[in-house]
Amino acid sequence: MPNTTHQVTEVYAKDGSALSLTGATLLHQEQSAFQHIEIYQTASFGKLMVLDGCFMVTDRENFLYHEMMTHPALYTHPDPRTVCIIGGGDCGSLKEVLKHPEVRSAVQIEIDERVTRLAEQYFPELCSANHDPRATLKFIDGLKWVKEAAPGSVDIIIVDSTDPVGPAEGLFNAAFYRDCLRALGDNGILVQQSESPLFHLELQAAMHGHMRSAGFAQTRSLFFPQFIYPSGWWSATLAGKGDLTQFRRTAALLKPFATEYYNADIHQAAFAMPEFFKRRLQKL
Amino acid sequence: MPNTTHQVTEVYAKDGSALSLTGATLLHQEQSAFQHIEIYQTASFGKLMVLDGCFMVTDRENFLYHEMMTHPALYTHPDPRTVCIIGGGDCGSLKEVLKHPEVRSAVQIEIDERVTRLAEQYFPELCSANHDPRATLKFIDGLKWVKEAAPGSVDIIIVDSTDPVGPAEGLFNAAFYRDCLRALGDNGILVQQSESPLFHLELQAAMHGHMRSAGFAQTRSLFFPQFIYPSGWWSATLAGKGDLTQFRRTAALLKPFATEYYNADIHQAAFAMPEFFKRRLQKL
Repeated sequence: MPNTTHQVTEVYAKDGSALSLTGATLLHQEQSAFQHIEIYQTASFGKLMVLDGCFMVTDRENFLYHEMMTHPALYTHPDPRTVCIIGGGDCGSLKEVLKHPEVRSAVQIEIDERVTRLAEQYFPELCSANHDPRATLKFIDGLKWVKEAAPGSVDIIIVDSTDPVGPAEGLFNAAFYRDCLRALGDNGILVQQSESPLFHLELQAAMHGHMRSAGFAQTRSLFFPQFIYPSGWWSATLAGKGDLTQFRRTAALLKPFATEYYNADIHQAAFAMPEFFKRRLQKL
Repeated sequence: MPNTTHQVTEVYAKDGSALSLTGATLLHQEQSAFQHIEIYQTASFGKLMVLDGCFMVTDRENFLYHEMMTHPALYTHPDPRTVCIIGGGDCGSLKEVLKHPEVRSAVQIEIDERVTRLAEQYFPELCSANHDPRATLKFIDGLKWVKEAAPGSVDIIIVDSTDPVGPAEGLFNAAFYRDCLRALGDNGILVQQSESPLFHLELQAAMHGHMRSAGFAQTRSLFFPQFIYPSGWWSATLAGKGDLTQFRRTAALLKPFATEYYNADIHQAAFAMPEFFKRRLQKL
């Protein structure tokens, strides 16, 4: 039986704040082999998925995250044909990747099959591309998959993971980045969600350092708003074997699909570095 | 006597969410002639000012708002000498304006003197330019001041107000914008805080419409993160008698003062329009 609760809250303990969504009804909860999963209906944000107490995705504003985790990397790569998503169990990133007609195969490697099964049930819109013939869904360890991938076999690796504690911890270090570098082809790009510029600046600086020491030619961060994540301001960090400063602007201007946030101007804008961030990276 | 509370919360009732800052101690509260004012010490955000239950300013992240309410407009105007701030009682916008050496006078017109007196006491860093010889602080009705200002006497009007309910309601309509247009000189710019792109899209569309119908040649919105405001994503809308699409980029690159967020790249990036926002403005 669903329980009715007044609100659902994520506490950002280290940063002395907490966000609540009100009018929340618990639709489902379970302990999977990897984490505690809850699904709520909320008053204003549609459905909400919570993993180990952390807000992961809502109907209303997931477009920001999923568009910015995918389109900037795909329009930066000159010809993205094979894409691998590590994590991303809600399937929203997969859906955005498969909007690109040049993508020939996209494999999603989520360690926790229950996240995807619940997304199929409660977030069907995010899962609308799961049966695309170009899509493969695997429920195995992404770290191992990347380590065993044929060298140069992937154009883009998207690390759409939870925070760097718990199941995703091994995805934030130089050893993993070296495996990604090896798996990526010429001009290959790794893009990873990289937490809040306001709350996790040191993590981001460390990621740039690890990615560069793993051998990537360039690293760049991009920024976007994301209400339900700590501080409401989020980032992704790109590591490239080639040049990340140019992108297929004309293709982005003429993109053959709809978006809610991303466009060619947003692409360019997202990479603008705040002064405090630029100062921190200059110290690397 | 200060009271100790566990947390201080702003509820965004219409949008089914609530933000809390934890470890909050109430340092001061009073009912002024205009609103209820509270000052808290928080665990991670320094001091917080709350007006009528709405979070207004914290030590930790006010730089985003104050820099983006001022520097984009000042570097868009070809020669900003006289600046008027309507509202802005915490004095943070005034401080940023007076970083520009070309500004010869800046008048802050806050209706509620108590906001400024409490800012002087609890947010001294924001008030560090209050005694600049170019600064004038007036505690009168900003609407009336603009109506009576000599035609063409102001280069930039910054409307740094509370939400469009209560004391600030009259600052969001075409009659006020016509008064601003008359008070502004050649190339004059009006910049107004314009709420959340995620929560208040219709308000922003209406502002663009009112500003254009008042006679401004161009209107543009800019976007920035702001954790303590509803949705964590905020905007300002500019209305210009001249061209708003160019700015003094070289001057911004060589700015003779420090910032935490703003720089020339951020200036350009902030005006990039999300797809959903662009679609809405195209319907005006």
